[in-house]
Amino acid sequence: MSRIGIFDSGVGGLTVQRAVLEAVPTAGTVYLGDTARVPYGTKSAETVTQYSLRNARFLARHEIDLLVVACNTASAVALPALREALSVPVVGVVEPGARVAARASRIGRIGVIGTQGTIASGAYQAAIRRERPDATVVARACPLFVPLAEEGWTDPRDEVVRGVVRRYLAPIREAGIDTLVLGCTHYPLLWSAIEAELPGVELVDSARAIAADVRERFGGAGPASGEHLFFVTDTPESFLAVAGRFLGRPVLTAEHVDV
Amino acid sequence: MSRIGIFDSGVGGLTVQRAVLEAVPTAGTVYLGDTARVPYGTKSAETVTQYSLRNARFLARHEIDLLVVACNTASAVALPALREALSVPVVGVVEPGARVAARASRIGRIGVIGTQGTIASGAYQAAIRRERPDATVVARACPLFVPLAEEGWTDPRDEVVRGVVRRYLAPIREAGIDTLVLGCTHYPLLWSAIEAELPGVELVDSARAIAADVRERFGGAGPASGEHLFFVTDTPESFLAVAGRFLGRPVLTAEHVDV
Repeated sequence: MSRIGIFDSGVGGLTVQRAVLEAVPTAGTVYLGDTARVPYGTKSAETVTQYSLRNARFLARHEIDLLVVACNTASAVALPALREALSVPVVGVVEPGARVAARASRIGRIGVIGTQGTIASGAYQAAIRRERPDATVVARACPLFVPLAEEGWTDPRDEVVRGVVRRYLAPIREAGIDTLVLGCTHYPLLWSAIEAELPGVELVDSARAIAADVRERFGGAGPASGEHLFFVTDTPESFLAVAGRFLGRPVLTAEHVDV
Repeated sequence: MSRIGIFDSGVGGLTVQRAVLEAVPTAGTVYLGDTARVPYGTKSAETVTQYSLRNARFLARHEIDLLVVACNTASAVALPALREALSVPVVGVVEPGARVAARASRIGRIGVIGTQGTIASGAYQAAIRRERPDATVVARACPLFVPLAEEGWTDPRDEVVRGVVRRYLAPIREAGIDTLVLGCTHYPLLWSAIEAELPGVELVDSARAIAADVRERFGGAGPASGEHLFFVTDTPESFLAVAGRFLGRPVLTAEHVDV
Protein backbone atom coordinates (compact mmCIF):
# COMPACT_ATOMS: atom_id res chain seq x y z
CA MET A 1 0.00 0.00 0.00
CA SER A 2 1.26 3.46 -0.90
CA ARG A 3 1.30 6.49 1.32
CA ILE A 4 1.11 9.89 -0.33
CA GLY A 5 2.09 13.14 1.34
CA ILE A 6 0.18 16.22 0.17
CA PHE A 7 0.64 19.83 1.14
CA ASP A 8 -1.08 23.06 0.27
CA SER A 9 -1.07 26.56 1.67
CA GLY A 10 -4.50 25.85 3.14
CA VAL A 11 -7.63 23.85 2.55
CA GLY A 12 -7.77 24.04 -1.27
CA GLY A 13 -5.37 21.13 -1.72
CA LEU A 14 -8.07 18.81 -0.44
CA THR A 15 -9.61 19.06 -3.93
CA VAL A 16 -6.35 17.56 -5.23
CA GLN A 17 -6.46 14.86 -2.54
CA ARG A 18 -10.05 14.12 -3.55
CA ALA A 19 -9.08 13.62 -7.19
CA VAL A 20 -6.05 11.51 -6.21
CA LEU A 21 -8.20 9.25 -4.03
CA GLU A 22 -10.76 8.85 -6.82
CA ALA A 23 -7.89 7.75 -9.08
CA VAL A 24 -6.01 5.65 -6.48
CA PRO A 25 -8.56 4.55 -3.85
CA THR A 26 -6.10 2.24 -2.09
CA ALA A 27 -3.66 5.01 -1.15
CA GLY A 28 -3.10 6.30 2.34
CA THR A 29 -2.53 10.06 2.69
CA VAL A 30 -0.91 12.56 5.01
CA TYR A 31 -2.19 16.09 4.36
CA LEU A 32 -0.59 19.30 5.64
CA GLY A 33 -2.38 22.64 5.24
CA ASP A 34 -0.16 25.62 6.09
CA THR A 35 -3.18 27.54 7.35
CA ALA A 36 -1.14 29.84 9.60
CA ARG A 37 0.74 31.28 6.62
CA VAL A 38 -1.90 31.04 3.88
CA PRO A 39 -2.03 32.41 1.18
CA TYR A 40 1.15 31.70 -0.80
CA GLY A 41 -0.09 33.31 -4.02
CA THR A 42 0.71 36.88 -2.97
CA LYS A 43 4.15 36.15 -1.52
CA SER A 44 7.65 36.07 -2.97
CA ALA A 45 9.14 32.93 -4.53
CA GLU A 46 11.80 32.94 -1.76
CA THR A 47 9.24 32.89 1.05
CA VAL A 48 7.02 30.30 -0.68
CA THR A 49 10.06 28.07 -1.23
CA GLN A 50 11.08 28.36 2.42
CA TYR A 51 7.57 27.43 3.62
CA SER A 52 7.33 24.59 1.08
CA LEU A 53 10.59 23.09 2.32
CA ARG A 54 9.35 23.15 5.91
CA ASN A 55 6.08 21.47 4.86
CA ALA A 56 7.88 18.84 2.81
CA ARG A 57 10.32 17.97 5.61
CA PHE A 58 7.42 17.53 8.01
CA LEU A 59 5.64 15.17 5.60
CA ALA A 60 8.85 13.28 4.81
CA ARG A 61 8.99 12.21 8.47
CA HIS A 62 5.69 10.31 7.92
CA GLU A 63 7.15 7.57 5.69
CA ILE A 64 5.58 8.79 2.45
CA ASP A 65 6.31 7.19 -0.94
CA LEU A 66 5.46 10.31 -2.95
CA LEU A 67 5.04 14.02 -2.27
CA VAL A 68 2.20 15.80 -4.09
CA VAL A 69 2.52 19.58 -4.09
CA ALA A 70 -1.16 20.50 -4.34
CA CYS A 71 -0.55 24.26 -4.19
CA ASN A 72 -0.12 25.76 -7.65
CA THR A 73 2.09 28.61 -6.39
CA ALA A 74 4.42 26.22 -4.56
CA SER A 75 4.45 23.91 -7.61
CA ALA A 76 5.34 26.88 -9.79
CA VAL A 77 8.25 28.20 -7.73
CA ALA A 78 9.54 25.54 -5.29
CA LEU A 79 9.69 22.22 -7.17
CA PRO A 80 13.46 22.20 -7.89
CA ALA A 81 14.28 22.98 -4.24
CA LEU A 82 11.85 20.32 -3.03
CA ARG A 83 13.26 17.65 -5.37
CA GLU A 84 16.76 18.45 -4.15
CA ALA A 85 15.75 18.27 -0.48
CA LEU A 86 13.67 15.07 -0.55
CA SER A 87 14.61 11.46 -1.25
CA VAL A 88 11.07 10.52 -2.42
CA PRO A 89 9.60 11.59 -5.78
CA VAL A 90 7.95 15.01 -5.82
CA VAL A 91 5.15 15.94 -8.25
CA GLY A 92 3.47 19.30 -8.63
CA VAL A 93 0.22 20.34 -10.29
CA VAL A 94 1.75 22.64 -12.91
CA GLU A 95 3.29 20.09 -15.29
CA PRO A 96 0.30 17.72 -15.43
CA GLY A 97 -2.08 20.64 -15.93
CA ALA A 98 0.09 22.14 -18.65
CA ARG A 99 0.38 18.77 -20.43
CA VAL A 100 -3.37 18.13 -20.45
CA ALA A 101 -4.01 21.66 -21.75
CA ALA A 102 -1.35 21.42 -24.47
CA ARG A 103 -2.92 18.16 -25.73
CA ALA A 104 -6.52 19.33 -25.39
CA SER A 105 -6.16 22.52 -27.42
CA ARG A 106 -7.08 22.21 -31.07
CA ILE A 107 -5.87 25.62 -32.19
CA GLY A 108 -2.85 26.01 -29.89
CA ARG A 109 -4.19 29.10 -28.10
CA ILE A 110 -4.27 28.40 -24.37
CA GLY A 111 -5.19 30.55 -21.37
CA VAL A 112 -3.88 30.20 -17.81
CA ILE A 113 -5.33 31.82 -14.70
CA GLY A 114 -3.85 31.63 -11.21
CA THR A 115 -2.50 33.63 -8.29
CA GLN A 116 -0.09 36.51 -8.74
CA GLY A 117 2.82 34.27 -7.67
CA THR A 118 1.89 31.48 -10.07
CA ILE A 119 1.41 33.76 -13.06
CA ALA A 120 4.48 35.90 -12.33
CA SER A 121 6.65 32.77 -12.14
CA GLY A 122 5.83 31.93 -15.75
CA ALA A 123 5.88 28.24 -14.82
CA TYR A 124 2.64 27.28 -16.59
CA GLN A 125 3.55 29.30 -19.65
CA ALA A 126 6.96 27.57 -19.88
CA ALA A 127 5.54 24.08 -19.23
CA ILE A 128 2.89 24.50 -21.95
CA ARG A 129 5.52 25.67 -24.45
CA ARG A 130 7.74 22.69 -23.59
CA GLU A 131 4.85 20.39 -24.54
CA ARG A 132 3.81 22.44 -27.53
CA PRO A 133 6.41 24.98 -28.69
CA ASP A 134 4.06 26.66 -31.16
CA ALA A 135 1.39 27.41 -28.53
CA THR A 136 0.25 30.95 -27.78
CA VAL A 137 -0.30 31.30 -24.02
CA VAL A 138 -2.32 34.10 -22.44
CA ALA A 139 -1.94 34.31 -18.64
CA ARG A 140 -3.76 36.37 -16.06
CA ALA A 141 -3.72 36.60 -12.26
CA CYS A 142 -7.21 36.74 -10.67
CA PRO A 143 -6.62 37.81 -7.05
CA LEU A 144 -10.32 38.08 -6.14
CA PHE A 145 -11.23 34.52 -7.18
CA VAL A 146 -9.92 32.93 -3.96
CA PRO A 147 -11.81 35.24 -1.58
CA LEU A 148 -14.93 34.90 -3.76
CA ALA A 149 -14.73 31.10 -3.54
CA GLU A 150 -14.04 31.20 0.19
CA GLU A 151 -17.00 33.52 0.74
CA GLY A 152 -19.14 31.01 -1.17
CA TRP A 153 -19.99 33.62 -3.82
CA THR A 154 -19.77 31.31 -6.84
CA ASP A 155 -23.23 31.37 -8.45
CA PRO A 156 -22.89 32.44 -12.10
CA ARG A 157 -26.22 34.30 -11.84
CA ASP A 158 -24.84 36.46 -9.01
CA GLU A 159 -24.08 39.92 -10.47
CA VAL A 160 -20.98 40.37 -8.28
CA VAL A 161 -19.59 36.98 -9.31
CA ARG A 162 -20.37 37.69 -12.96
CA GLY A 163 -18.82 41.15 -12.77
CA VAL A 164 -15.54 39.94 -11.23
CA VAL A 165 -15.24 36.91 -13.53
CA ARG A 166 -16.01 39.00 -16.62
CA ARG A 167 -13.42 41.64 -15.73
CA TYR A 168 -10.58 39.17 -15.17
CA LEU A 169 -11.45 37.00 -18.16
CA ALA A 170 -12.00 39.81 -20.69
CA PRO A 171 -8.41 39.74 -22.05
CA ILE A 172 -8.48 35.92 -22.04
CA ARG A 173 -11.73 35.95 -23.97
CA GLU A 174 -10.44 38.50 -26.48
CA ALA A 175 -7.36 36.36 -27.11
CA GLY A 176 -9.53 33.70 -28.73
CA ILE A 177 -8.31 30.69 -26.73
CA ASP A 178 -9.99 27.27 -26.87
CA THR A 179 -8.51 25.84 -23.60
CA LEU A 180 -8.10 27.40 -20.15
CA VAL A 181 -6.06 26.02 -17.24
CA LEU A 182 -7.56 26.70 -13.82
CA GLY A 183 -4.19 27.13 -12.12
CA CYS A 184 -5.32 27.44 -8.50
CA THR A 185 -7.03 24.84 -6.30
CA HIS A 186 -9.87 27.24 -5.48
CA TYR A 187 -10.85 28.08 -9.04
CA PRO A 188 -12.84 24.91 -9.84
CA LEU A 189 -15.38 26.23 -7.31
CA LEU A 190 -16.04 28.99 -9.88
CA TRP A 191 -16.29 26.48 -12.77
CA SER A 192 -19.84 27.39 -13.83
CA ALA A 193 -19.19 31.14 -13.68
CA ILE A 194 -16.01 30.79 -15.74
CA GLU A 195 -17.71 28.46 -18.22
CA ALA A 196 -20.58 30.93 -18.66
CA GLU A 197 -18.10 33.66 -19.53
CA LEU A 198 -16.08 31.52 -21.99
CA PRO A 199 -18.59 29.40 -23.91
CA GLY A 200 -16.97 26.65 -25.98
CA VAL A 201 -13.66 26.88 -24.10
CA GLU A 202 -12.40 23.65 -22.49
CA LEU A 203 -11.51 24.09 -18.82
CA VAL A 204 -8.57 22.09 -17.41
CA ASP A 205 -8.49 21.34 -13.69
CA SER A 206 -4.93 20.65 -12.58
CA ALA A 207 -6.20 18.50 -9.70
CA ARG A 208 -7.63 15.97 -12.16
CA ALA A 209 -4.51 16.13 -14.31
CA ILE A 210 -2.16 15.31 -11.43
CA ALA A 211 -4.48 12.53 -10.22
CA ALA A 212 -4.09 10.78 -13.57
CA ASP A 213 -0.30 11.03 -13.16
CA VAL A 214 -0.43 9.52 -9.69
CA ARG A 215 -2.59 6.64 -10.95
CA GLU A 216 -0.02 5.84 -13.65
CA ARG A 217 2.58 5.63 -10.92
CA PHE A 218 0.68 3.53 -8.41
CA GLY A 219 -2.08 1.80 -10.40
CA GLY A 220 -5.66 2.56 -9.60
CA ALA A 221 -7.54 -0.61 -8.71
CA GLY A 222 -8.50 -1.86 -5.29
CA PRO A 223 -10.75 -0.98 -2.38
CA ALA A 224 -10.48 2.23 -0.33
CA SER A 225 -8.25 1.03 2.46
CA GLY A 226 -5.75 3.74 3.35
CA GLU A 227 -5.46 5.77 6.51
CA HIS A 228 -5.86 9.54 6.12
CA LEU A 229 -4.11 11.98 8.47
CA PHE A 230 -4.62 15.75 8.48
CA PHE A 231 -2.32 18.41 9.93
CA VAL A 232 -2.65 22.21 9.94
CA THR A 233 -0.38 25.02 11.16
CA ASP A 234 -3.20 27.24 12.46
CA THR A 235 -5.73 25.90 14.99
CA PRO A 236 -7.89 23.20 13.36
CA GLU A 237 -11.39 24.70 13.87
CA SER A 238 -11.77 26.72 10.68
CA PHE A 239 -10.07 23.98 8.62
CA LEU A 240 -12.42 21.33 9.96
CA ALA A 241 -15.43 23.58 9.32
CA VAL A 242 -14.91 23.43 5.54
CA ALA A 243 -12.56 20.46 4.91
CA GLY A 244 -15.35 17.96 4.27
CA ARG A 245 -16.80 20.13 1.51
CA PHE A 246 -13.43 20.33 -0.28
CA LEU A 247 -12.55 16.64 0.19
CA GLY A 248 -16.01 15.24 -0.54
CA ARG A 249 -15.94 13.03 2.55
CA PRO A 250 -15.99 13.81 6.27
CA VAL A 251 -12.81 15.12 7.94
CA LEU A 252 -13.26 14.57 11.65
CA THR A 253 -9.90 15.47 13.15
CA ALA A 254 -6.86 17.52 12.23
CA GLU A 255 -3.81 18.07 14.39
CA HIS A 256 -2.22 21.47 14.95
CA VAL A 257 1.53 21.42 14.23
CA ASP A 258 4.29 24.01 14.05
CA VAL A 259 6.51 23.30 11.05
CA MET B 1 12.61 62.89 20.63
CA SER B 2 10.29 59.90 20.78
CA ARG B 3 10.62 56.72 18.82
CA ILE B 4 7.46 54.79 18.04
CA GLY B 5 7.36 51.12 17.03
CA ILE B 6 4.50 50.16 14.73
CA PHE B 7 3.56 46.76 13.40
CA ASP B 8 0.90 45.47 11.08
CA SER B 9 0.29 42.21 9.24
CA GLY B 10 1.33 43.98 6.05
CA VAL B 11 1.35 47.35 4.37
CA GLY B 12 -2.00 48.69 5.66
CA GLY B 13 -0.50 49.89 8.95
CA LEU B 14 1.34 52.59 7.03
CA THR B 15 -1.99 54.48 6.99
CA VAL B 16 -1.79 54.45 10.79
CA GLN B 17 1.83 55.61 10.67
CA ARG B 18 0.78 58.38 8.30
CA ALA B 19 -1.89 59.63 10.71
CA VAL B 20 0.52 59.35 13.67
CA LEU B 21 3.16 61.41 11.86
CA GLU B 22 0.59 64.04 10.92
CA ALA B 23 -0.29 64.27 14.62
CA VAL B 24 3.28 63.99 15.98
CA PRO B 25 5.64 65.16 13.22
CA THR B 26 8.70 65.07 15.47
CA ALA B 27 8.49 61.31 16.15
CA GLY B 28 10.87 58.72 14.78
CA THR B 29 9.33 55.40 13.76
CA VAL B 30 10.28 51.75 13.29
CA TYR B 31 7.72 49.92 11.15
CA LEU B 32 7.43 46.14 10.82
CA GLY B 33 5.09 44.62 8.22
CA ASP B 34 4.65 40.85 8.67
CA THR B 35 4.24 40.43 4.91
CA ALA B 36 5.32 36.77 4.92
CA ARG B 37 2.35 35.80 7.14
CA VAL B 38 -0.26 38.34 6.03
CA PRO B 39 -3.27 38.35 6.46
CA TYR B 40 -4.07 38.02 10.16
CA GLY B 41 -7.80 38.59 9.75
CA THR B 42 -8.61 35.03 8.69
CA LYS B 43 -6.46 33.29 11.32
CA SER B 44 -7.07 32.11 14.86
CA ALA B 45 -6.53 34.36 17.89
CA GLU B 46 -3.78 31.98 19.07
CA THR B 47 -1.79 32.28 15.85
CA VAL B 48 -2.30 36.06 15.60
CA THR B 49 -1.14 36.44 19.21
CA GLN B 50 1.97 34.34 18.56
CA TYR B 51 2.89 36.41 15.48
CA SER B 52 2.15 39.68 17.31
CA LEU B 53 4.50 38.72 20.15
CA ARG B 54 7.30 37.98 17.68
CA ASN B 55 6.74 41.32 15.94
CA ALA B 56 6.64 43.22 19.24
CA ARG B 57 9.83 41.61 20.55
CA PHE B 58 11.63 42.54 17.34
CA LEU B 59 10.50 46.18 17.62
CA ALA B 60 11.33 46.30 21.35
CA ARG B 61 14.98 45.70 20.44
CA HIS B 62 14.95 49.05 18.57
CA GLU B 63 14.69 51.28 21.67
CA ILE B 64 11.08 52.33 21.15
CA ASP B 65 9.15 54.45 23.67
CA LEU B 66 5.73 53.21 22.58
CA LEU B 67 4.35 50.30 20.57
CA VAL B 68 1.44 51.05 18.24
CA VAL B 69 -0.44 47.95 17.10
CA ALA B 70 -1.72 49.20 13.75
CA CYS B 71 -3.42 45.93 12.80
CA ASN B 72 -7.04 45.81 13.93
CA THR B 73 -7.08 42.02 14.25
CA ALA B 74 -3.93 41.99 16.41
CA SER B 75 -5.33 44.90 18.46
CA ALA B 76 -8.54 42.94 18.95
CA VAL B 77 -7.00 39.67 20.14
CA ALA B 78 -3.38 40.17 21.27
CA LEU B 79 -3.25 43.36 23.35
CA PRO B 80 -3.24 41.74 26.83
CA ALA B 81 -0.41 39.35 25.82
CA LEU B 82 1.58 42.22 24.28
CA ARG B 83 1.17 44.42 27.37
CA GLU B 84 2.37 41.58 29.57
CA ALA B 85 5.40 40.87 27.37
CA LEU B 86 6.63 44.44 26.82
CA SER B 87 8.04 47.03 29.21
CA VAL B 88 6.97 50.00 27.03
CA PRO B 89 3.34 51.15 26.69
CA VAL B 90 1.29 49.36 24.04
CA VAL B 91 -1.67 50.97 22.28
CA GLY B 92 -3.99 49.36 19.75
CA VAL B 93 -6.43 50.82 17.26
CA VAL B 94 -9.58 49.23 18.70
CA GLU B 95 -10.04 51.31 21.86
CA PRO B 96 -9.43 54.74 20.26
CA GLY B 97 -11.73 53.88 17.36
CA ALA B 98 -14.45 52.61 19.71
CA ARG B 99 -14.17 55.74 21.88
CA VAL B 100 -14.47 58.14 18.96
CA ALA B 101 -17.47 56.23 17.60
CA ALA B 102 -19.22 56.07 20.99
CA ARG B 103 -18.88 59.85 21.37
CA ALA B 104 -19.77 60.67 17.76
CA SER B 105 -23.05 58.77 17.66
CA ARG B 106 -26.13 60.87 18.41
CA ILE B 107 -28.61 57.98 18.57
CA GLY B 108 -26.38 55.30 20.10
CA ARG B 109 -26.65 52.93 17.13
CA ILE B 110 -23.15 52.12 15.88
CA GLY B 111 -21.87 49.81 13.15
CA VAL B 112 -18.47 48.08 13.02
CA ILE B 113 -16.92 46.42 9.99
CA GLY B 114 -13.63 44.50 9.97
CA THR B 115 -11.95 41.19 9.24
CA GLN B 116 -13.43 37.87 10.36
CA GLY B 117 -10.93 37.74 13.25
CA THR B 118 -11.67 41.27 14.43
CA ILE B 119 -15.45 40.86 14.32
CA ALA B 120 -15.41 37.35 15.83
CA SER B 121 -13.32 38.59 18.76
CA GLY B 122 -16.08 41.00 19.79
CA ALA B 123 -13.39 43.51 20.83
CA TYR B 124 -14.91 46.57 19.14
CA GLN B 125 -18.38 45.66 20.34
CA ALA B 126 -17.15 45.35 23.95
CA ALA B 127 -15.05 48.53 23.78
CA ILE B 128 -17.99 50.57 22.45
CA ARG B 129 -20.26 49.26 25.19
CA ARG B 130 -17.66 50.12 27.85
CA GLU B 131 -17.75 53.74 26.63
CA ARG B 132 -21.50 53.78 26.14
CA PRO B 133 -23.36 50.90 27.83
CA ASP B 134 -26.68 51.73 26.18
CA ALA B 135 -25.27 51.54 22.64
CA THR B 136 -26.62 49.09 20.07
CA VAL B 137 -23.71 47.71 18.02
CA VAL B 138 -24.13 45.98 14.66
CA ALA B 139 -20.97 44.20 13.44
CA ARG B 140 -20.12 42.57 10.14
CA ALA B 141 -17.02 40.98 8.63
CA CYS B 142 -16.31 42.07 5.04
CA PRO B 143 -13.68 39.59 3.72
CA LEU B 144 -13.65 40.94 0.16
CA PHE B 145 -12.87 44.54 1.12
CA VAL B 146 -9.11 43.90 1.57
CA PRO B 147 -8.58 42.19 -1.81
CA LEU B 148 -10.75 44.87 -3.49
CA ALA B 149 -8.60 47.63 -1.98
CA GLU B 150 -5.37 45.81 -2.86
CA GLU B 151 -6.57 45.33 -6.44
CA GLY B 152 -7.24 49.09 -6.58
CA TRP B 153 -10.95 48.49 -7.25
CA THR B 154 -12.30 51.28 -5.05
CA ASP B 155 -14.23 53.60 -7.37
CA PRO B 156 -17.82 53.95 -6.07
CA ARG B 157 -19.07 54.13 -9.68
CA ASP B 158 -17.56 50.68 -10.41
CA GLU B 159 -20.42 48.15 -10.51
CA VAL B 160 -18.33 45.41 -8.89
CA VAL B 161 -17.26 47.72 -6.06
CA ARG B 162 -20.82 48.93 -5.57
CA GLY B 163 -22.17 45.36 -5.62
CA VAL B 164 -19.75 44.06 -3.01
CA VAL B 165 -20.10 47.10 -0.73
CA ARG B 166 -23.90 47.02 -0.97
CA ARG B 167 -24.08 43.32 -0.11
CA TYR B 168 -21.89 43.58 2.99
CA LEU B 169 -23.45 46.81 4.23
CA ALA B 170 -27.11 45.85 3.69
CA PRO B 171 -27.65 44.58 7.27
CA ILE B 172 -25.70 47.56 8.63
CA ARG B 173 -27.88 49.93 6.64
CA GLU B 174 -31.09 48.23 7.72
CA ALA B 175 -30.03 48.53 11.38
CA GLY B 176 -30.39 52.32 11.18
CA ILE B 177 -26.97 53.28 12.53
CA ASP B 178 -25.60 56.83 12.44
CA THR B 179 -21.89 55.97 12.95
CA LEU B 180 -19.69 53.28 11.39
CA VAL B 181 -16.21 52.23 12.52
CA LEU B 182 -13.90 51.19 9.68
CA GLY B 183 -12.14 48.50 11.72
CA CYS B 184 -9.43 47.50 9.25
CA THR B 185 -6.52 49.56 7.92
CA HIS B 186 -7.50 48.86 4.31
CA TYR B 187 -11.10 50.02 4.55
CA PRO B 188 -10.47 53.79 4.35
CA LEU B 189 -9.40 53.15 0.74
CA LEU B 190 -13.09 52.28 0.15
CA TRP B 191 -14.29 55.44 1.98
CA SER B 192 -16.22 56.94 -0.96
CA ALA B 193 -17.89 53.66 -1.86
CA ILE B 194 -18.95 53.05 1.76
CA GLU B 195 -20.14 56.64 2.15
CA ALA B 196 -22.21 56.38 -1.03
CA GLU B 197 -23.96 53.31 0.38
CA LEU B 198 -24.63 54.84 3.82
CA PRO B 199 -25.56 58.48 3.24
CA GLY B 200 -25.64 60.55 6.44
CA VAL B 201 -23.65 57.99 8.43
CA GLU B 202 -20.45 59.26 10.07
CA LEU B 203 -17.42 57.10 9.24
CA VAL B 204 -14.75 56.63 11.92
CA ASP B 205 -11.22 55.78 10.83
CA SER B 206 -9.35 54.06 13.68
CA ALA B 207 -6.03 55.31 12.28
CA ARG B 208 -7.06 58.92 12.96
CA ALA B 209 -8.43 57.99 16.37
CA ILE B 210 -5.20 56.37 17.55
CA ALA B 211 -3.14 59.24 16.16
CA ALA B 212 -5.01 61.65 18.43
CA ASP B 213 -4.19 59.37 21.38
CA VAL B 214 -0.51 59.32 20.49
CA ARG B 215 -0.45 63.13 20.21
CA GLU B 216 -1.90 63.44 23.73
CA ARG B 217 0.93 61.25 24.94
CA PHE B 218 3.84 62.93 23.17
CA GLY B 219 2.60 66.40 22.24
CA GLY B 220 2.30 67.35 18.61
CA ALA B 221 4.35 70.44 17.88
CA GLY B 222 7.72 70.63 16.20
CA PRO B 223 9.37 70.03 12.87
CA ALA B 224 9.50 66.65 11.12
CA SER B 225 12.84 65.40 12.37
CA GLY B 226 12.60 61.70 13.12
CA GLU B 227 14.28 58.81 11.39
CA HIS B 228 11.97 56.22 9.81
CA LEU B 229 12.99 52.58 9.47
CA PHE B 230 10.99 49.89 7.64
CA PHE B 231 11.23 46.12 8.04
CA VAL B 232 9.26 43.34 6.35
CA THR B 233 9.21 39.55 6.75
CA ASP B 234 8.73 38.77 3.03
CA THR B 235 11.12 40.17 0.42
CA PRO B 236 10.78 43.98 0.23
CA GLU B 237 9.88 44.40 -3.47
CA SER B 238 6.09 44.21 -3.32
CA PHE B 239 6.02 46.25 -0.07
CA LEU B 240 8.14 49.00 -1.61
CA ALA B 241 5.95 49.03 -4.73
CA VAL B 242 2.92 50.27 -2.77
CA ALA B 243 4.29 51.62 0.55
CA GLY B 244 4.55 55.23 -0.64
CA ARG B 245 0.87 55.30 -1.59
CA PHE B 246 -0.18 54.09 1.87
CA LEU B 247 2.24 56.33 3.80
CA GLY B 248 1.78 59.44 1.67
CA ARG B 249 5.54 59.99 1.37
CA PRO B 250 8.26 58.01 -0.40
CA VAL B 251 9.53 54.78 1.18
CA LEU B 252 12.89 54.06 -0.44
CA THR B 253 14.23 51.09 1.47
CA ALA B 254 12.90 48.28 3.65
CA GLU B 255 14.93 45.50 5.18
CA HIS B 256 13.92 41.83 5.05
CA VAL B 257 13.95 40.23 8.52
CA ASP B 258 12.93 36.88 9.95
CA VAL B 259 11.11 37.39 13.26
